Amino acid sequence: MEFYEHGGNIYGNDITYDFSVNSNPFGMPPGLKKTLREQIDRCEVYPDRHCLSLRREIARQMQIEDSQCICGSGASEIIHLLVRAVKPKRALLLAPAFSEYERALAAAECEINFYFLKEEKEFALEESYIAELQDEIDMVFLCNPNNPVGNIIPKELLRKIADSCRKHHIMLVIDECFLPFTREYEEVSGLFLLKEYRNLFLIHAFTKLYAIPGLRLGYGISSNEEMIKKMEKLSPSWHVSAMAQIAGLEALQEKEYVRSSREYLWRQQTVCCAAIRGMGGRVYEPKANYLFFKGPFGLYEALLKKKILIRSCENYRGLDGAFYRISIKKEEENRLLFRELKEVWDGKEYNDTGNDV
Amino acid sequence: MEFYEHGGNIYGNDITYDFSVNSNPFGMPPGLKKTLREQIDRCEVYPDRHCLSLRREIARQMQIEDSQCICGSGASEIIHLLVRAVKPKRALLLAPAFSEYERALAAAECEINFYFLKEEKEFALEESYIAELQDEIDMVFLCNPNNPVGNIIPKELLRKIADSCRKHHIMLVIDECFLPFTREYEEVSGLFLLKEYRNLFLIHAFTKLYAIPGLRLGYGISSNEEMIKKMEKLSPSWHVSAMAQIAGLEALQEKEYVRSSREYLWRQQTVCCAAIRGMGGRVYEPKANYLFFKGPFGLYEALLKKKILIRSCENYRGLDGAFYRISIKKEEENRLLFRELKEVWDGKEYNDTGNDV
Repeated sequence: MEFYEHGGNIYGNDITYDFSVNSNPFGMPPGLKKTLREQIDRCEVYPDRHCLSLRREIARQMQIEDSQCICGSGASEIIHLLVRAVKPKRALLLAPAFSEYERALAAAECEINFYFLKEEKEFALEESYIAELQDEIDMVFLCNPNNPVGNIIPKELLRKIADSCRKHHIMLVIDECFLPFTREYEEVSGLFLLKEYRNLFLIHAFTKLYAIPGLRLGYGISSNEEMIKKMEKLSPSWHVSAMAQIAGLEALQEKEYVRSSREYLWRQQTVCCAAIRGMGGRVYEPKANYLFFKGPFGLYEALLKKKILIRSCENYRGLDGAFYRISIKKEEENRLLFRELKEVWDGKEYNDTGNDV
Repeated sequence: MEFYEHGGNIYGNDITYDFSVNSNPFGMPPGLKKTLREQIDRCEVYPDRHCLSLRREIARQMQIEDSQCICGSGASEIIHLLVRAVKPKRALLLAPAFSEYERALAAAECEINFYFLKEEKEFALEESYIAELQDEIDMVFLCNPNNPVGNIIPKELLRKIADSCRKHHIMLVIDECFLPFTREYEEVSGLFLLKEYRNLFLIHAFTKLYAIPGLRLGYGISSNEEMIKKMEKLSPSWHVSAMAQIAGLEALQEKEYVRSSREYLWRQQTVCCAAIRGMGGRVYEPKANYLFFKGPFGLYEALLKKKILIRSCENYRGLDGAFYRISIKKEEENRLLFRELKEVWDGKEYNDTGNDV
């Protein structure tokens, strides 16, 4: 299992190209890198334990109050702090979904129900989900766009879910870490529900958009300020490093970097989809900076021999070894991947059971 | 209260000299700073979620197994993870002591007993402490040397405490974050008890010795490998940043920096003690890189007006506003502090009740 760990396995493998991690392929914005280099001395002082400057800037840009925002050492810490603050007895997760929700819920000894997204429905979240939102559920996690699938939850469905969650006293968490990469960002972000629904919590990260997974910085927002305060109380002191706070403030000014990398990735999205379809693969609705597809078994292992890492989705609930996720990178790297992928793919014959024949 | 926060208040105050934070006054070792600057690109990849290289080097230097070591985003995260793994119903803390133990225990809804260190006994930990170690206690925290006091727990007493804790199924935590600054490091570190006592957990930090509080890096060691595994399971994924892991590996090679800064601080310790005693202050056993003393009320506020920050110990349990802690810095800064302190001090008259007269 360790083999398929997200973001972990470059340390265990000899890798030249890592398509398993979904960060912005342009790397850190140059201004951000320069700032970090210049401000190395800030490692010598304690970070602001309240992340006040950063929270104020996030709040300003999102048009919320800074008391409605909490920063964390990566979105993963926000997920854990929120679960500990809510103390759910039973939660509902989508399958497949990002594994950290389950990890955090397990750490809090919470029972978990799973709502399986169906392959025949393109893994889309359907209205039938709402029937699962009952009083016995204390907390639900959605990921928009979903990970690994990459599809988006429509705005109307989001409101219906928020309504139903409120009715049944369920904390609704929407992980929007990949949303800034989509065309639908402003349209479908849960921000439009924030004021109205105190049972809503949105998770955002700097990790993906600004390519700083090694720094650890994410944040959560909610109009439930008591929940935010509770999370602060549960966190270790100085939990967000000084370097991460500096990086966050700088990143929030990088509007042009965000605009241009988004547009570049949208163009490559079209190219990459066509490439996989050309090989006979099935690509599911790709809204973010990664592609989720079905192909023959064995691609992961075969590419690994070429020192190329892709994400086998075998260890996601509800999926098997015929499903893969690749990040969209720069044109040249994408070309290289598809050249190598084609060679591997042609050596196999694809059938619907996913077995090599 | 916020006024007296450790390490937090440089963000709320206009400060020129901060004597409230106890980091190595020499700042980051130059080699460490250079490495961080050169390796800024490592922010672009996920950290090793298992901190394997760093844990192996710590284990090698400490002559333990790497499965007996866990890294955290600062010693504060280690404290919180350990409390969550132990799930104590009732804990025993020293008063005064570092406030993070109480914060972590409160987050876990643990009841707390306090053992008050007595002023008339120089705030030393006495054998009477052992009588408090009863079955109802699940966890105890010691800090060696203590913070804010700076005194050391003798080796023989440590063994007696470990024995009694084992007998009563108590997890004994010894926070040794400041121990490397003392002359007694090798002698009194709980390491000598590690193999024998599976109920022992030692906490170490990189923060203080290598002056990197802004980076967040600490670690815990125990021969109870199941406890270490449990803590790993409770932690958010990728909780130790890539920069912190790089810094840790580099720091562990900085033997000469450690040797020379320790010796320098010992010399300054003598000078600083004499200076405070010369003003009529009472200095308690100073073993670490900070001094704990009793003086007239109002020194904190008066120095703050001169943009100098010292630690008022008013908000420590069992202390009042007549107690202060200052870090030992470089000669010139120490001189400056004592010049300013004398001016302030001479404007007051000291009496034993601690009230201005």
